[in-house]
Order: sequence, then structure tokens, then C-alpha cells
Amino acid sequence: MKRRDFLKSTALGLGMATALAPAPGSACPGGLRGTGDLALIVERANGSVLIVDTTAHKVVHRVEGLGDLSHASAVYSRDERYAYIFGRDGGLTKLDILEGAIVKRVLQAGNAIGGAISDDGRLVAVSNYKPGGVRVFDAATLDPVADIPATFGEGKRSKTVGLVDAPGRRFVFTLYDASEIWIADFSSGAEPRMTRFTGIGDLPYDALITGDGRHYIAGLFGEDGLTHIDLWADAPAPRRILSGYGKGEKKLPVYKMPHLEGWALAGGKFLLPAVGRHELLVLDAASFKEAGRVGVHGQPVFAVARPDGRQVWVNFAHPLNDTIQVVDIPSLTVVHEFKPGPAALHMEFAPRGAEVWLSVRDRDEVHVYDARSFAKLSVLPAQKPSGIFMTARAHRIGL
Amino acid sequence: MKRRDFLKSTALGLGMATALAPAPGSACPGGLRGTGDLALIVERANGSVLIVDTTAHKVVHRVEGLGDLSHASAVYSRDERYAYIFGRDGGLTKLDILEGAIVKRVLQAGNAIGGAISDDGRLVAVSNYKPGGVRVFDAATLDPVADIPATFGEGKRSKTVGLVDAPGRRFVFTLYDASEIWIADFSSGAEPRMTRFTGIGDLPYDALITGDGRHYIAGLFGEDGLTHIDLWADAPAPRRILSGYGKGEKKLPVYKMPHLEGWALAGGKFLLPAVGRHELLVLDAASFKEAGRVGVHGQPVFAVARPDGRQVWVNFAHPLNDTIQVVDIPSLTVVHEFKPGPAALHMEFAPRGAEVWLSVRDRDEVHVYDARSFAKLSVLPAQKPSGIFMTARAHRIGL
Repeated sequence: MKRRDFLKSTALGLGMATALAPAPGSACPGGLRGTGDLALIVERANGSVLIVDTTAHKVVHRVEGLGDLSHASAVYSRDERYAYIFGRDGGLTKLDILEGAIVKRVLQAGNAIGGAISDDGRLVAVSNYKPGGVRVFDAATLDPVADIPATFGEGKRSKTVGLVDAPGRRFVFTLYDASEIWIADFSSGAEPRMTRFTGIGDLPYDALITGDGRHYIAGLFGEDGLTHIDLWADAPAPRRILSGYGKGEKKLPVYKMPHLEGWALAGGKFLLPAVGRHELLVLDAASFKEAGRVGVHGQPVFAVARPDGRQVWVNFAHPLNDTIQVVDIPSLTVVHEFKPGPAALHMEFAPRGAEVWLSVRDRDEVHVYDARSFAKLSVLPAQKPSGIFMTARAHRIGL
Repeated sequence: MKRRDFLKSTALGLGMATALAPAPGSACPGGLRGTGDLALIVERANGSVLIVDTTAHKVVHRVEGLGDLSHASAVYSRDERYAYIFGRDGGLTKLDILEGAIVKRVLQAGNAIGGAISDDGRLVAVSNYKPGGVRVFDAATLDPVADIPATFGEGKRSKTVGLVDAPGRRFVFTLYDASEIWIADFSSGAEPRMTRFTGIGDLPYDALITGDGRHYIAGLFGEDGLTHIDLWADAPAPRRILSGYGKGEKKLPVYKMPHLEGWALAGGKFLLPAVGRHELLVLDAASFKEAGRVGVHGQPVFAVARPDGRQVWVNFAHPLNDTIQVVDIPSLTVVHEFKPGPAALHMEFAPRGAEVWLSVRDRDEVHVYDARSFAKLSVLPAQKPSGIFMTARAHRIGL
């Protein structure tokens, strides 16, 4: 007899059927349910997150007590039950999204920016500003596994940025102050084998890895250009791409640094936000040469590809952050524009692209749109919402 | 008080703590758990399936009574709780993989081959041999939504093959007897808008769609060649590719038709099994022209890319089906070969590529390998196992 059958029949025998019988459609008082359609929405001002059901368009839980969540991000365990949330205050929180409860929380550094989970789901790495470096934890227990100080020069430590997972139990990250890119390879155990690339360019501020884990690209704030490493090469080496893309043009003040994790690979092209310009740079994904520009409404922050890669959704820095534009890839033209409201700063597509979820921070709302008809399907209340993270990320390289 | 707390305290009051207390780490008698790391393994001879935990490498449930499961396949609901299993006997079964129980089962045709779920998770489509055509069901209830008979000529009906989902609530499939490809577009509701392409080639026996939902490619058994449709084109049209790839060579008897859903897109190339030849055809993914051949051990059945696309694993038709070869993509050479046992016919990679699961049918075993070191990690007993379907498929286009 299954345990739940035992429960039910015992309850009936005691005349407690109403209290103990499972809810209709559920065998479980806590709510037995799949986790493939859940998502986490960061409420940055409160140190709280919402767990939402992306099928029903409903809030399931609010969880509080996560510290400073400005710039917070999240990754998922491979069973899609636990979220690891990286706070700005160095907090690393393991959250049970089914129960809506914190499992464990550690303050692992004084100031941090993002993290990653290894391809086998066993290691969680956090990118730290203070003290500069990467710390790696056991995903099950949050016990420390490795500490990688980002040392350079005469005893200096660099902020680390652009931390991503790469196939083969590796993490790749960039040293902002040192102009270096490091690979930490944990394939042999808890002691990483390190690879260091130096002189990769001036002020690398963020980076991405392609969905196949092959190409790592860092954006440079100190110069017009980017740095690319082909991790498949026998001897991987950084090379500059798109050098001097803004040569001879007057620099605009930068209102908000673009986010490179939002870079879109679509139809054989990368679309990426140019720093401080009202345009997207188009990069041929095979040659890594410039393949065009797309003029847009303002300084782009995120350029996110719809999962089929046919369109890219773009949002913008202050003071133009109330607007979203949609770019068609084959024609590289803006085909749709709308104004969801002030501070429309984060977008997340359903994994097969039917819908897009959008945080409209200064309206305290999350909107759900049909990603093809652009119809607004739902509005959910949320307190100063920012990043939206669907559980499908558990299954993607580099997210 | 949460319901589970109520349960526990009631149980304690009655002296039943041992029986009613939840298992450690679980709040729920039935086993509250995430579903992102579950998989389904078809036991073809028994009409049963196993539900397995791919993290623990353990069988969670065996579910029986699913009819004729030769050539069976499965897709998942967007919450990764329900599997839809397509049996050869026309049976369509909705399975609750958390409970390990059949939710509903309909015999929707006399003979069927595969199915698909729409990008919004609302519609399940089944490809039928008898009566030839596609039937579409409500994913929640399995109530019929649409019936699309594959009619051609003078009141004839064709078998349908190569049924896949495409973005925008579409299904694409091929008419084996009619040499046609049809698109059923459900974006406006339950009445599909149909597009038909005729004369697409002789005896199209299977098809694939690329992971971005852009390219649909059908294999031809009646001629050396394939047919390609770019679904992004303003006016999509079929065109022949790789025509006459075996011209002038002596045809070998075909022991088993290759499966095209296993076609591998890796590093900008498609690797696909040549019909009746001991080789993989290499197709440039941008130009759709031949870019080489890879000589392999036997007639390939599946060529499956590791999720990072760096390697492709290949298995073979009888009498060479005890062997697996691994092809390195940049060099197009075989870099590893091993013999897991007789009838090693199905492979499934963990979604980020750390492991590969392999059915060894005639040994009644499922093996788990490290996808990089090739070390055998686990052996699970299974009765004549065939297809392996991980829940991560819920989030992929065309699976």
C-alpha cells in the first residue's frame, strides 16, 4: 500500500476524513506539484522574492528575509526544487520553492555580484567584489568547497564579474580591475585546475557564455570593443573583437551599464547593447565580425532573444526605461514598440517562447504578454520587482 | 498552521507519529519533490514505463498498463508533472510522474507513431498511421480538439510521420504516402489554419525540426536526399538538399531505419545518419550543403549531440547494435568506442550534458555514463528498455 493510501484509510477509520483527505487533484497537503513552470521574481527593495506559477499566472509564495537584493540573481538545482539567490550583500540563500521557505542562508562575502551552478548541479559559485574573488559551495549543504581569491599585481585583489558555468564542471569569470579572465576547472574534484588569461582589455565589466558553452565574450567599459575566447580551441586565447566600434563618435553619458547576460544569439547573429549608444551592435556568430547596427529608442540595457531567435526584445536605461522595442532578426528592424510603464527593466521568456514576463518596477507590477500577438495577458502585483528567473534555467548552460 | 503541521500534530496526539510523520527532507507522504530531474524509460515489451530520479540514479515508480509501447515516445506538460505517452496501438496516455499513476488513457487511433505538445502546453497532437492523419487533444483533459485526416488523391489517406511542434502553436508533419508536408497552425484557436506543400520527395520516412523551430528537414527513403523548409521565409517552400548523396554506390540492405529526431546539430553542422550506409552525413547548418562524411562502425540509427555540441554519440542497427561511437565535431573523427551490450538503442543526455543515459535492451539494463570521462557511473535494471525521456524536454522546441 502506498503511504498516502495508508494515510487516507487510517483517517477514515478515525472519522477524520475531511481533515486528512488530500485536496482534490493533490495527494499532498503541502501541494504536490511539478516545478517546471515555477519562477522566482526578485522584490529588490524588500529583500523578498515571489514564487509564481507561470501556467496559472498566480503568486504561490512570498519569501522574506533575503537581505539586499539589488542586482540579485538566481540559479536552480537540477531538480528545479531549490533556488540559489545571490544578493548584493554577499548573501547566498538556498530557497525551497515548493515550500516557499529558506533552507539555508550564508553571508559568504561583504559585497557580491551574481553566481552560477556547475553542469552537474553539485557546485554553486559566487562572484565577489569584496573580498574580490570567487567562492564555491556544495549545492546540497552550502558548505564551502573552494575559495579562489582574485589576486593580481602586488597583493591586490580584483572585483570579479561575468561568472558563468561552462561544460565539464568549469566556471569562467573576469577580473574587472586586473583585465584578466580565469577558468576554474573542478572536473577532478574540489581543488580547481586554474587557467588565467591576462591583458584581455580595459575594464571588462560583464561577460556572457553562449548557450553551447563554447564562446565566452567580455564587454569592455574602458575601450570600444569586446574580448572573445573560443573554449573549444586546443589552446584557448583571448582576442579582441569589434575594436573601436564607436571610433570618432562623441561618447554619451552612460546612464546604466548594459547587462551582457541578456545578449541575444538569434538567427546566427548576436545582438548586443552598445555601451552609451542608442543602438544594438550586430555580430556575425560565425566570424565574430560586425554585421550591422540597429538604431533603437535609447541606451539599451537588455537585448533578450525570444527562444526561437526570430525576434529580440530590448529595454532601455533611464530616462527612457518605460519603453520596450521588439527587433525582427531577418530584417534587423524594429517591428513593435510599447510603453508598459516606468522602469520596465527585466524580461523573461517562457522556455518555448509563447509568453514573456516583464517587471515594471515603478508600477509595482509584473506583466505577462503573448510573445507573438503582444497582447497583455495578465498583471500581477509585486513590490518593486526586478529580475525574473524561470526554473527552466536549471537545464541551460551558462544561465 | 500549514496543513502538514496539522497532520503531524494530530498524528502525534494519536500516538501515530512514526506512521504519519513525513520522511526526512520531505514535507509530504507522497514525496514532495521537484520534477526537473525525473525521466521516463519505456519498457517496450511489457507495456510499462519506469520513472527514474536522474540525480539519485534510482527507479521511483513502475507504471503498467500502457498497451503496445514498441516505438513509443513521450512529451511533457510545461510543469513537468505529466507525461503524454504515444503508443504504437494508438493509445495516448497521460501519466502523473509524481504519483506514478495513469491520469487518463484514450485509444485515439488503430496505429500511431509519435506525438508533440504545443509551445504553450495546451495541445497534444498524435501522428497516426491508421487512420492516417493527426489528431489533437486538450492537454488537460485529453478531450478531442481537432481531427486532421491526411487525405490525398482520390479519397486516399496517408500515414503521417515526423510530427513536431513549431513556435506559435503550430504542428508540422509529413505524409509518407502522399509526399507532402503540412503545417497546422492553431494560433487562432481550435480550428487550424492549414498550409500544404506537395511533391516534397519520394517516401519521406521521418523528419526533424531544429531547436529554434526554424528549419524542418524530412528524410527520404525513396531517393538519396532530404527536403528542407525554412519556416522563417516569407513564403516557405520545400527544397531538396544533399540530392544523390549515394550516387553510383551500391545500396546496402537497410536493417533499421535511422531516426531523424536524433539528428545532431553541433558546432554549426548537422550530423545525420545516412540510410543504409556506414556513415554520417555532415551538413553545413548555414548553407545546407554537404560538408563531409564520417565513416562509422555500422548503419547509424541515432546520432545525438551532447548538449554543448562538441561531440556526437552514435549507435547502430542490427547486427552491430552492441556498440557506441563518439564523434568529435571539430575534427570529425571517432574519438571513443565501447560496447555496452546487445541492442544499445537509445541515448539521452542530461540537459546540461554531464551524463548520458543509455538503454541496453537485450541486457535488461539502463547505463549511466559520465559524458566526458566515459566512466560507467550506474547500472539500473529495466525490462527491455527503449526510449528515455527526461523532463527537461518540456522546455525545448521540437522534442
